[in-house]
Amino acid sequence: MPGISHKGLAMPASPIRKLVPYAEAAKKKGTVVYHLNIGQPDIETPQVVFDKLHSLNLKVIEYSHSAGFESYRKGLADYYRKYQINVTHNDIIITNGGSEAILIGFMTCFNEGDEIIVPEPFYANYNGFATTAGVKLVPVTSSIESGFALPPVEEFEKRITSKTKGILICNPGNPTGYLYTYTELEALRDIVKKHDLYLFADEVYREFCYDGHQPKSAMTLEGIENNVILVDSISKRYSMCGARVGALVSKNKEVIANALKFAQARLSPPTFGQIAGEAALATPDTYFKQVINEYVERRNVLVDGLNKIEGVFCPKPSGAFYCIARLPIDDADKFAQWLLESFSYENQTVMLAPASGFYSTPGLGKNEVRLAYVLNIDALKKAVKCLDEALKVYPGRTVKAKEAAQSN
Amino acid sequence: MPGISHKGLAMPASPIRKLVPYAEAAKKKGTVVYHLNIGQPDIETPQVVFDKLHSLNLKVIEYSHSAGFESYRKGLADYYRKYQINVTHNDIIITNGGSEAILIGFMTCFNEGDEIIVPEPFYANYNGFATTAGVKLVPVTSSIESGFALPPVEEFEKRITSKTKGILICNPGNPTGYLYTYTELEALRDIVKKHDLYLFADEVYREFCYDGHQPKSAMTLEGIENNVILVDSISKRYSMCGARVGALVSKNKEVIANALKFAQARLSPPTFGQIAGEAALATPDTYFKQVINEYVERRNVLVDGLNKIEGVFCPKPSGAFYCIARLPIDDADKFAQWLLESFSYENQTVMLAPASGFYSTPGLGKNEVRLAYVLNIDALKKAVKCLDEALKVYPGRTVKAKEAAQSN
Repeated sequence: MPGISHKGLAMPASPIRKLVPYAEAAKKKGTVVYHLNIGQPDIETPQVVFDKLHSLNLKVIEYSHSAGFESYRKGLADYYRKYQINVTHNDIIITNGGSEAILIGFMTCFNEGDEIIVPEPFYANYNGFATTAGVKLVPVTSSIESGFALPPVEEFEKRITSKTKGILICNPGNPTGYLYTYTELEALRDIVKKHDLYLFADEVYREFCYDGHQPKSAMTLEGIENNVILVDSISKRYSMCGARVGALVSKNKEVIANALKFAQARLSPPTFGQIAGEAALATPDTYFKQVINEYVERRNVLVDGLNKIEGVFCPKPSGAFYCIARLPIDDADKFAQWLLESFSYENQTVMLAPASGFYSTPGLGKNEVRLAYVLNIDALKKAVKCLDEALKVYPGRTVKAKEAAQSN
Repeated sequence: MPGISHKGLAMPASPIRKLVPYAEAAKKKGTVVYHLNIGQPDIETPQVVFDKLHSLNLKVIEYSHSAGFESYRKGLADYYRKYQINVTHNDIIITNGGSEAILIGFMTCFNEGDEIIVPEPFYANYNGFATTAGVKLVPVTSSIESGFALPPVEEFEKRITSKTKGILICNPGNPTGYLYTYTELEALRDIVKKHDLYLFADEVYREFCYDGHQPKSAMTLEGIENNVILVDSISKRYSMCGARVGALVSKNKEVIANALKFAQARLSPPTFGQIAGEAALATPDTYFKQVINEYVERRNVLVDGLNKIEGVFCPKPSGAFYCIARLPIDDADKFAQWLLESFSYENQTVMLAPASGFYSTPGLGKNEVRLAYVLNIDALKKAVKCLDEALKVYPGRTVKAKEAAQSN
């Protein structure tokens, strides 16, 4: 039997996947499981999308241009201009979700062995794309105490070697929900410019900024126009994760020309998804206002609720729909499994994403979890109550562990 | 400005792409261009697909399982059983078209520098996937005289080194239309078994077998169950190229388990495309009968028509919807450009795919072109007439060139 490739063996399995059998077992026992572990929103996809699909009048589902339908790219360019991102349809390649945008971007810009500095905790799937492309992600740690603000410039400088070819950010951040300030983005701009690095900016949560904050795209930073690669997706924007439509956007003509060759090899992005995405461009502003209001309320219920639990600390993020909480526990992996396997409160429990999967530095995030507020208010309140009750009785609770240690 | 990666620079541009501006210019002049250059069928997508989309009753377009919807995979397993391919849904990963199946398969099975033997001429995009994965395609040349039959086993043996890890076939073949005989498949089985290689079998044209021939899948070859990776796609089967739904299928559990990690990194295949694909499973047999009849008639019109032109030789293929013709010309790249730039007959011309792009050995296929019979009978007849007229006056016609040389 022939063997598996080195990269195949090195590819990380989904950090949440190992918990899935426990969640399935809990559900089979009749326990309600609140899924705070995944970023699959329950928000309805805009009606304009379904109207378009219901009235679809095609005879043949054809390939599109490898860069995506021109009409869609032109529509997207108009959309970007609302965010001061001045691009034309020629600067855009439509991809199979943001995932393919990252992968094609990495393949186009980086050689095997190149290094990319990325603030941690970061979106775990970046590891998979890095493994595929053979590049090394070099973490620079942000702290929960600062709400996961950008680490000081010196921390980036320390990590820059002759192999460093890029910086990767997610703004607003998954898994932190942190929204970088203009000052932080300008600091990034200066490092990128000084060392002539690529700046990959994953901005798929652009619409989800709260408390009056406005998103500022890395594409608007002056002086690094040829360095910035924007990674985008319609998955979260229109609650259309399954459409698998994203975009790689750059003013760097060389990058787009070479990325297009990777896009040509796979022929075209999905036609149905692009039709849906183009229809979604007409989504009324009221839709987003309602969605933002809903997320703000959910965030407040979740984060305020968590912070009321003794021993829990959870910074309140300004964007996306995630937060990271520090819990009074020994090990979030064990706790997450215990919640599903050994705990229930009024026949309910919670599924969490242990934060260790979002850190690259071993040992970090051991007592942290990521929570996605993609459930409705009522479910979130019940989930917080569950967590409160669970932490009271969890055998690995650190306060108890200390007491037990003292009594021995 | 930061540079482009080695692989980015090495990625081949689409061999047809350079002709596109000439086709566009011809159309702007008002010339009708018959596109025999691409495999985008004009056959209508089955009505069951549109019925499903028109009645779609979803609220949220969610991610599917990374391997694809379980119901769809189960339906696909039933479909495969009709072709004696005995797999369960656990042996199937739904992909973004056959393209992603090849790429994930290569990444899972091969290391940088590994070699894959592939009969040439072959589907040009294999080059792009090989470049992305860092593997080397080693061609073994099949000849137009034999209709592109499998080259003798000795030719494969000669090319096997310590780096050889796989063989890649396309059956029925793009660009040749050749359908491998059972004897040929068994010969391949023996080489694969002897050297414990992977056998990648691209069988996306399975439905398109003519003259009473039945397709035989590499998955049915006994004794190499753990070696075969089936690459599949619904693009051609249901004339749904834009759905971007394919599959990687293997009985090798290790391959599937590791391939799934690449699939998890990109979250899921397209939801709309999968819904369309699952609906298409109910396509009535009458649809395929009509389509096959149509393609047989088209093939006969095209191939018989070509062979009537003086100096043209075109083997009649038993599968897919392509053929390769040898023309009495100096250079197919020049001829294809000349057709678009300098020729028209009754205000019509033809766009062809020069076959050189399908050969890996330099210099081969110089006087060959690939033609796709994806146009209706009337258009094909006109296209053949155009070609006939064009070959009479093409300045690089080899017969003329010889005469000219003799007179000098």
